[in-house]
Amino acid sequence: MNDPLILLAHGSRDPRWRAPFDALADSLSGRLETPLRLAYMELCDPSLESVVAELVTAGYRHADVLPLFFAAGRHLREDVPRQIEALHARHETLTIELLAPVGEHPAFIDALASIIEGRAEPSHAP
Amino acid sequence: MNDPLILLAHGSRDPRWRAPFDALADSLSGRLETPLRLAYMELCDPSLESVVAELVTAGYRHADVLPLFFAAGRHLREDVPRQIEALHARHETLTIELLAPVGEHPAFIDALASIIEGRAEPSHAP
Repeated sequence: MNDPLILLAHGSRDPRWRAPFDALADSLSGRLETPLRLAYMELCDPSLESVVAELVTAGYRHADVLPLFFAAGRHLREDVPRQIEALHARHETLTIELLAPVGEHPAFIDALASIIEGRAEPSHAP
Repeated sequence: MNDPLILLAHGSRDPRWRAPFDALADSLSGRLETPLRLAYMELCDPSLESVVAELVTAGYRHADVLPLFFAAGRHLREDVPRQIEALHARHETLTIELLAPVGEHPAFIDALASIIEGRAEPSHAP
């Protein structure tokens, strides 16, 4: 079976902040063959811990983590790698790879260029 | 002349956090016809105020602001619109349009799908 991918967002106590991430994960799940999960680093559920535990129970042997971050700050340089190490120690059957944050992938930069050049997008609704 | 676009990032006191945004703006500037500026909402320079003042001095009459955010939280729903309103009041010759955050544009979601399906990307360097 395909290895699953965990979209890792920062998290917030504000449900209005989380809504677009939920919508994004739903919309991607519908069009990809990769089993997709959404996890939050802090402040709200589901946590990375609970998502990893669920994947282990489902019998997966590997998972990639794609941070929904524009850049790698302290969280991605220190906290998340430490968290992933601890999770692998607890669930030895599952290897976990932390991918570069979305903002560092060339496809993201191409998308940004196309958004800027084709500014027919609707303006931000308040 | 083409209307300029301001990439608006959150901002941080950590120069390592800012480096990818600077690199992104540089890389996009080199391939787009749109005059591009990078501004930070808080915690570091250049501020939106100083970038807008520079565009007014350069004679521009309109600028779009594209938030480098995945979703519209309180900052984008309240603080930034208020800031833009105040800037337009101060610089009446310049109209400013706040676009939807990057994360809400379909091109971004397409990019995410292609990153996930073509996971040959280099893993995150610590």
